[in-house]
This record gives sequence, C-alpha cells and structure tokens, in this order.
Amino acid sequence: MTGMLTIAGLGPGDEALVTPEVSIALAESTDIFGYGPYVARVRQREGLVLHASDNRQELQRAADALRLAAEGRRVVVVSSGDPGVFAMASAVFESLEAAPRWQDIPIRVLPGVTAMLAAAARVGAPLGHDFCAINLSDNLKPWPVIEKRLRLAAEADFAIALYNPRSASRPEGFERALAILNDAGCGDRIMIFAHAVTSPEERIEALPVRDARPDMADMRTLVIVCNSSTRRIGRWIYAPRRAS
Amino acid sequence: MTGMLTIAGLGPGDEALVTPEVSIALAESTDIFGYGPYVARVRQREGLVLHASDNRQELQRAADALRLAAEGRRVVVVSSGDPGVFAMASAVFESLEAAPRWQDIPIRVLPGVTAMLAAAARVGAPLGHDFCAINLSDNLKPWPVIEKRLRLAAEADFAIALYNPRSASRPEGFERALAILNDAGCGDRIMIFAHAVTSPEERIEALPVRDARPDMADMRTLVIVCNSSTRRIGRWIYAPRRAS
Repeated sequence: MTGMLTIAGLGPGDEALVTPEVSIALAESTDIFGYGPYVARVRQREGLVLHASDNRQELQRAADALRLAAEGRRVVVVSSGDPGVFAMASAVFESLEAAPRWQDIPIRVLPGVTAMLAAAARVGAPLGHDFCAINLSDNLKPWPVIEKRLRLAAEADFAIALYNPRSASRPEGFERALAILNDAGCGDRIMIFAHAVTSPEERIEALPVRDARPDMADMRTLVIVCNSSTRRIGRWIYAPRRAS
Repeated sequence: MTGMLTIAGLGPGDEALVTPEVSIALAESTDIFGYGPYVARVRQREGLVLHASDNRQELQRAADALRLAAEGRRVVVVSSGDPGVFAMASAVFESLEAAPRWQDIPIRVLPGVTAMLAAAARVGAPLGHDFCAINLSDNLKPWPVIEKRLRLAAEADFAIALYNPRSASRPEGFERALAILNDAGCGDRIMIFAHAVTSPEERIEALPVRDARPDMADMRTLVIVCNSSTRRIGRWIYAPRRAS
C-alpha cells in the first residue's frame, strides 16, 4: 500500500457541510490525526485508528502524521472549517520543511467551509464586499503585529473576521482588540458574535462595536466586524455591493 | 406550498465540493436562478425550471427570484463558490431592501467553498496566516477605493486574494493592480494564478509579483498575492504560522 497524507477541512460543525470529497477521504483512511474535538467528529469504524491530541500540539501532530504516511498508511489530518485558514495545513508544511526525508510523500489539501463563511451565511451577507481575516491568537504573533493589522484593516474599511478571539489563558487580547477598533473609529460598525455556528449550541448576537463586551467571545466564537456601509434589513445584515 | 428563497454556493467547480446541504436544496427546488454557466451545473429534472441570466443582471435576477418565492415556489439562487463572497447574497438583500412587501419570505443562505480556499488548497497553504479578499471589479467601486485597499493590504502584509482580476471589457484594472503592488514593495512576493480551479481546465502558475504579466489573469482566475514570509517547499507554497 502506498502511503498518503490528506489534510482535510471538516467544515464548521454540521455534517451537511462536510464536502463529499472529504467524506470519501475519511472513509478510505487508516489513521485520523487532529485536535480531540475534531477527531471526535469522524465516525469510528473497524480498522481506523484515531489519534486525538491536544490543542497547541500542531507540529508534533504533523510530524507523527507524516511519519505514518511514510510507513504506508493512509493518513488524514483533520481541522475544523478549512484546513488552510489558521489550521493544520501550515503546520504540516512547516513540519515537512524540517524533515526533507518526507518530501516525496503524496500530500493533498482538501478545502472546507471556513467559519467566517458559515457565520456570514447565518446573518445575511456581511462579507459581500472586500474583507479580511485576522487570527487574534498571539501564541505565534507579537501583539504589535495584530494591532497594526487591525488599524490598517479599519482604515481600509474591510469587513474583519476575527478568528480565535479569546482563550481562557489569554483573555485580554480581545479586550485590547475592542479598544483598538473603537479608537480606530469603528464604534458604529456592526459586530457579529457567531458562537459554535451550525452546531446545536449555535448562538448569534449582533450589536455596535462600542457596545460589545470582551466576555461575549470565547474560542468557539467567530467575530465579524462589518464594514461601515453594512446595513440591517429586517433580521438580515448585509454589505451592499456598491462602495463609495 | 410555502415559498422559500435559498441562496446557495456551488463551490468552485468540482461536484465533490458541493456540500450535501446544497445538493439537498437543489433536489427540493422548483426553480433555479443564476448566471448561465452556474445554472448549467445544476442537474435538469422533470418539474425543475432553470432561469439562466447574463452576468451583470444580478438585481433583476434577485427580484425575479423573490417574486417567484412570494408566489409559493421553492427557489434557489445559485452562485459559484460561496454566495456571500462577491456573489448573489448581497444582491438579494439589496433587492429585498427595495421591496418591503417581500420581507416575510423565508430566506436562507447556504455557504460554499469559495475560490480562494480551493486555490490555496491546490498549492499548499498561502492563506495560513492573516489575509484579505479584494474584488478587483470596478463596476460598483471607484478605482481609488481599490487602490487604497491594495496599498493598505500590502502595508499590513496580508496575503491578498484578488477576485475578478480581469474582464474583457476592463482589461486595464489588473495591470494597474500589478503596478500598485510593485510600487508598494511587493515585487518579491509570490503571486499565484489559479485558473478554473478544480475544473478540468484547471491551470496554476506561481511566480514573483514583479514577473507577473496582466494577461496571466482572466475572469476565471483567482489570484493570490502571498505575504512576505511565504515560502516554497518542494512543489508546495505555504505561509508559516509565525509572524515577526
């Protein structure tokens, strides 16, 4: 058997958002690697080995997955959402760069519906105009870089999707982000908190940035700061196509 | 029968990237609206009416779709990729805002895999760090807004996904964008041209921004300007997770 490594996105949570391509890859695999709650979304079956690991174990997980693929296993590394957006794909390629002996392993990346698209769909079309995505986790990125990007994104009048807004170990980051956004003149913009989108625990709130509180976000929340021309129409929120 | 309007994303092209949720919506519909080439991707069957229309007919198409839903039909408006990213969702809500009599129609938006995610997956993980998406079409957006956003995105060192880079009627826009990116110091960055991604005509090129030529893009091309720390490892291109 020829080994292979597939890096797959499971979508935001709902089974109905897993692409057929990913479902087939999971069905044909021998080993699944990923963060525990994501591995738990894969149906267990005879002959399938589940390798669940902790958050922040990305490089070790990637190396373990590459090693098994090199040994001939059909390995799938799973991420929530899309694997290329603040998820496992970059970690696998970092690991590959550090281990030239694995560079002939067949690898493929299977995209998925990333959280900001699912969150946007629930409320209307807040990403219907130019937008950006910023990872608020400062594990691997100094805070001044985050601050600079938030200020430039505000100046560009992008809608801004904020991934990983708040963790138990770094609760202060999102509070700082709110202060920066208010300082950058975004107080009137609509802010959307999409918690556990498409899962049974889904909860969505929308309010002006100036009224947002840090504790409205957690690590299962995707936040969207709408652009300045975004409007409400009934229960919907959307960015008009025209910009001035 | 109660009418309903579904705004659905068909993904970038490959059937294996259409979510089950969208496949079910198409199977249960009575009427499909959309740009001709997208409507052509829906399987014809007894009792299904296909309403294909021209590009740039978005508002008329949205109004026609809402009218049929108000009459009790199960209408699906299809877009390529994700319907909320430079596609039909915003047009439908604009049309809804202009016609308060339709505001009680049940509407839902079903997300899809947008082109930049599929393109990124093909080459590795160029969107693995902070990024933005800019629509280069200037139909509805003055060019100075596009230029300002390109310059701020370059300054923020975002990876930049460029949608609708070049049309037959406005071929000069992408040439201007290349000049701005070079002027903004992005000449060394890797630029990815992903043409017709996931379709049989898929073709992908990657080269430094300074070597890119305007005729490398057309309206079926998604362009990604990588961030400054993006690297090549073998045939792969990826953005490291760490930023300085």
